Amino acid sequence: MFGASLGSDHLDRLIRQLGRMPGIGQKSATRIALHLLNSHSDESAELSRAIIAMREKVRSCDLCSGITEDDLCSICENPRRATGELCIVEQPTDVFSMERAAVFRGRYHVLGGLLSPLDGIEPGDLRFAELKARLETENIQEIVLALSASVEGEATCLYTARVLEGHELRITRLATGIPVGGHLEFVDDVTLERAFSGRRNI
Amino acid sequence: MFGASLGSDHLDRLIRQLGRMPGIGQKSATRIALHLLNSHSDESAELSRAIIAMREKVRSCDLCSGITEDDLCSICENPRRATGELCIVEQPTDVFSMERAAVFRGRYHVLGGLLSPLDGIEPGDLRFAELKARLETENIQEIVLALSASVEGEATCLYTARVLEGHELRITRLATGIPVGGHLEFVDDVTLERAFSGRRNI
Repeated sequence: MFGASLGSDHLDRLIRQLGRMPGIGQKSATRIALHLLNSHSDESAELSRAIIAMREKVRSCDLCSGITEDDLCSICENPRRATGELCIVEQPTDVFSMERAAVFRGRYHVLGGLLSPLDGIEPGDLRFAELKARLETENIQEIVLALSASVEGEATCLYTARVLEGHELRITRLATGIPVGGHLEFVDDVTLERAFSGRRNI
Repeated sequence: MFGASLGSDHLDRLIRQLGRMPGIGQKSATRIALHLLNSHSDESAELSRAIIAMREKVRSCDLCSGITEDDLCSICENPRRATGELCIVEQPTDVFSMERAAVFRGRYHVLGGLLSPLDGIEPGDLRFAELKARLETENIQEIVLALSASVEGEATCLYTARVLEGHELRITRLATGIPVGGHLEFVDDVTLERAFSGRRNI
């Protein structure tokens, strides 16, 4: 927006850096940089330190690959979580979306992505080997596939079901349909078709 | 949004810090923090360094109080800028708004705020003494008040005009009226009244 005209190379550099963050355009980046410039130097130092500390401390859970600062995440470590149910998600953040909804009481397994041959993401890139290892050691009765309702999510669901063939367990996936509060008028045809074919008795 | 549930105190802390930036809500802060977590560690280190460097290097111009990394800003230092015209603005960033429009060829003077007795901002808090000093040393013929069209901006304009009484110079201020592209329907009454009283021959 201001180009290189803000009168300071260091300010311009910070604006460029901030502008690379998701959801931050040039205008927001400029506002944030000027806010940091005008704020107490404590605030900018604190933010700078928080970025570094986060990168140093945050790691993946040894079991589910979710976000943690220890060997195991708080969910895997929690003895009150049902051990017989495993929810498979794409990304660590999906764990928190599920937790927010507070519908699932079991444990998670983060795949680390979705199968996408076009993007070069193949089964070997995802945590299927770890999943199979967990089936050997944990007494899992149900696997819930909580993956995106996209082509890649679909493919990954089917592949997972094939990988798990031969194990005695129930494999389910999240329902596709009209979102709560959604009007038919704004629902796309594919979703509507899925909602129809998945209709339930009332 | 996720509360303290993201599984890492350091991640939560970064999200809180980011959430204090202007225009960044809890959701954007979470996206940015996770972006930094998933990105190359170079990117987060670079952002962290950019914040620190900006705070260390950026300072106020000795003359106009605009943004610079040296004693004088690039505008005050530029011998091709008209020395007889001085544009008074509230904040350093207003300099760049004016420069973007590329309508003013003179120099700037940053007041550092607007008079606001209710907020405890009195003439002594603003750079009026520096303004008077500049009138003694610089050969200024016109002062353009480029302040907000708010009550505080109004008050500051009137006060500035009084401060400058006795000096032989032209004092002007930006016109108030309908913004370009603005429809009468959406223009508030006060603006419309100003636009009417400031109407010009065509």
